[in-house]
Amino acid sequence: MKQGKFVTLEGPDGSGKTSVLNKLLQMINDHCGIDPVVTREPGGNMIGEKIREIILDVDHTQMDPRTEALLYAASRRQHVVETIRPAVEAGKLVISDRYVDSSIAYQGTGRDIPVELVKEINDFAIEGYLPDVTFLIDVPAEVGLQRIKQAQGSRQYDRLDQESLVFHEQTREAFLRLAKDQPQRIHVIDGTKSVEEVAQTCYQLLITHGILEEEAT
Amino acid sequence: MKQGKFVTLEGPDGSGKTSVLNKLLQMINDHCGIDPVVTREPGGNMIGEKIREIILDVDHTQMDPRTEALLYAASRRQHVVETIRPAVEAGKLVISDRYVDSSIAYQGTGRDIPVELVKEINDFAIEGYLPDVTFLIDVPAEVGLQRIKQAQGSRQYDRLDQESLVFHEQTREAFLRLAKDQPQRIHVIDGTKSVEEVAQTCYQLLITHGILEEEAT
Repeated sequence: MKQGKFVTLEGPDGSGKTSVLNKLLQMINDHCGIDPVVTREPGGNMIGEKIREIILDVDHTQMDPRTEALLYAASRRQHVVETIRPAVEAGKLVISDRYVDSSIAYQGTGRDIPVELVKEINDFAIEGYLPDVTFLIDVPAEVGLQRIKQAQGSRQYDRLDQESLVFHEQTREAFLRLAKDQPQRIHVIDGTKSVEEVAQTCYQLLITHGILEEEAT
Repeated sequence: MKQGKFVTLEGPDGSGKTSVLNKLLQMINDHCGIDPVVTREPGGNMIGEKIREIILDVDHTQMDPRTEALLYAASRRQHVVETIRPAVEAGKLVISDRYVDSSIAYQGTGRDIPVELVKEINDFAIEGYLPDVTFLIDVPAEVGLQRIKQAQGSRQYDRLDQESLVFHEQTREAFLRLAKDQPQRIHVIDGTKSVEEVAQTCYQLLITHGILEEEAT
């Protein structure tokens, strides 16, 4: 890999994104000897992590949906400028757990803000800086919620997890619409398969896109 | 005062806004027996104050101007929805130390973000909710900076105070342009006069606008 590249993982909560990401990183390291820059949204650097704390704080029940959308955009802006773009420009492979598609799907659909307005504030934040490839890990809303419930002992419960099944359904549909609109960039991956299989599919697509080189046989 | 009203104080750092506000509150209380709801930006409620901490943290030297603009808009959104609008709707007089004009003047001019874009994200935040009256406390940049310097012992030094004289000049001009564009709402007040005189002028204008009732003689 000579040029830096930017890859994102997207999908509703409970889609298994984080497990897939960890498996994918291991495969990339084992087979290609590459150690990608891994980051996440909201967060990714000191300022972004502080914004993340505000967004996810369970005490912030008064938070207006538009406040939340602006905080995500603020976190994303800092993420691009301070973390993602410098690493890509230095020739690194950057993989982010969530990016702009999450905002379009979550803020623009489930919460009654016109999607065009959410796009507008995100355009302000990213100035056209989109991933080379995005993997949308797709699971039915019931599966996602069931996984969240099972994981509640092992993973921190946050404000967003309190949302309903209807909200998860709407979000899933919004993600799928984005994938339909941008098929070159966004690949829909069946997240009901095993973590191993999902990661393997992502890995193969990175080769297809020329982001990773095929292993010598 | 039967209807709730919303009044803002604007002006560059060192314009004496806070001293004027305190004096004005005392006059309103003494002469009209009214105890206005006083608030400030960034801040004004729990979520807003946490956003304020991020914006003003001197360690955040990496903060991108667009991140900052989005954080101000986020804080403002929460301020309108949670603090200002409910109080106005309950018939209160709400006075805020800074509001949307500060963002247009600071983010839209001094920091190379097209002013139209700053207006766009602020429109998203406030949805047309503007003050009934705004007092722009105007001082030459040199006066403002001099006052900040004098006050450094008594008032917390923040990241914004580190900006240069040129920036203060640009900001002042941007504030004056806003006042020229919206003369019905924004009154330019000479901030080089004494705090007493400035507050008196504001007080009289509140009477002129029918926000306060003239005292019985």
